[in-house]
Amino acid sequence: MKNIRLIIEYDGTQYCGWQRQNNGMSIQQVIEEAIKQITNEQVKLIGSSRTDAGVHAKGFVANFVTNSKIPSERFKNAINAKLPEDIVIIDSSEVEESFHARYSAKGKKYSYSVLNRPIAAAICRAYTCQHKGLLNCEAMREGAKAFIGTHDFSAFKSSGSSVKTTVRTIYELEIVKHEDNIMFYVSGDGFLYNMVRIIVGTLLEVGSGKIKPIDIVDIIDSKDRDRAGKCVPAKGLCLEKVYY
Amino acid sequence: MKNIRLIIEYDGTQYCGWQRQNNGMSIQQVIEEAIKQITNEQVKLIGSSRTDAGVHAKGFVANFVTNSKIPSERFKNAINAKLPEDIVIIDSSEVEESFHARYSAKGKKYSYSVLNRPIAAAICRAYTCQHKGLLNCEAMREGAKAFIGTHDFSAFKSSGSSVKTTVRTIYELEIVKHEDNIMFYVSGDGFLYNMVRIIVGTLLEVGSGKIKPIDIVDIIDSKDRDRAGKCVPAKGLCLEKVYY
Repeated sequence: MKNIRLIIEYDGTQYCGWQRQNNGMSIQQVIEEAIKQITNEQVKLIGSSRTDAGVHAKGFVANFVTNSKIPSERFKNAINAKLPEDIVIIDSSEVEESFHARYSAKGKKYSYSVLNRPIAAAICRAYTCQHKGLLNCEAMREGAKAFIGTHDFSAFKSSGSSVKTTVRTIYELEIVKHEDNIMFYVSGDGFLYNMVRIIVGTLLEVGSGKIKPIDIVDIIDSKDRDRAGKCVPAKGLCLEKVYY
Repeated sequence: MKNIRLIIEYDGTQYCGWQRQNNGMSIQQVIEEAIKQITNEQVKLIGSSRTDAGVHAKGFVANFVTNSKIPSERFKNAINAKLPEDIVIIDSSEVEESFHARYSAKGKKYSYSVLNRPIAAAICRAYTCQHKGLLNCEAMREGAKAFIGTHDFSAFKSSGSSVKTTVRTIYELEIVKHEDNIMFYVSGDGFLYNMVRIIVGTLLEVGSGKIKPIDIVDIIDSKDRDRAGKCVPAKGLCLEKVYY
């Protein structure tokens, strides 16, 4: 029995998300079926997160237990040979029995890509979300500071998930502009359902001048979902890295 | 009669290239048909280049003559409303009668994207070309210097095109590495058929240690296509800008 850890990159455009569902093809199912083809085992892949439909990942982590004799580092190429081109295994290695992709995770880093121009994207349109009005990055950076640290993020959570606590710690929130692309990088010890997308949606309101950077403090304190910004579309979001 | 200039971004993945052809849908045809829907005129779009199947563009330039009363700057949104999502008009404006997107062009800038890692790309796989072996960027930058200036680029031209002269001037060839992505930016007064892709293919041989940076001088002088590198795949290439 070996516990194998996979690092996975995927383009989420064509999938209903990471987790197996009845209403569409999931990334989990596609990889489990690829593993079945090479091991003859119906493994259960444990994923680090439940990414939504359309969300991408560069460094998703998953693990599974197997009796297969395939050397751990060979799983990478063996599974890739059975996968469609929108999912690739970047790395495979044996980890200790106690490793659990979800429960062992200490933190995560996400990116969100905004194309800030009047015309929609043609190139890379599956990986970025257009915002027409010119955004003030300085104001967004000022507002972003309020998120750093440990807070009750109830105002930044979509309904439909049950969690023990809504307190999370954000380590870093960086905003990088290159030409008309604005990248948001957020890392923290964990994220509530849609939390990154609602944080970005709230910062876009700051960047548009609809709310002031200082207002973010009040919005967090209010714990009121209605006071935060919109949940921006899934396609701009990418799970960059999981920390253990 | 007005001469309208369009600046166009497109994802070339689904097309047989810019120019109308019998064997597939071209970008030119799609835009001409969109213009017909809004003006009732069968215009002839003049393009700055004949990009190949799979090649992308961020700043393609085209022009057409019309009797339409639509204000020049409105063409942008009017045409966009009729286009598929992989082609967008970034700008439309009236230019003088003598402006010709191809003959008036003074130069062009292209980019080429290489993903330098052992595993193929899942994200952005339509816009980058994978190279497995680790590339030496310093050696490629050294080799790139030999291309700068005015040379006979016969060794860097695919057959199938007839041109008056094979002499071209390259102004700049920049190589920018960010994590495992390597971008090549090439600007010049004009390019022979497949010239950018063969230059990049040759630099990849330098980066892999197959040829020395200094060998590029001899390869150019030889005017021998067989001595230059492979023509790298179309999907990594993007027409960034046309200079007038």
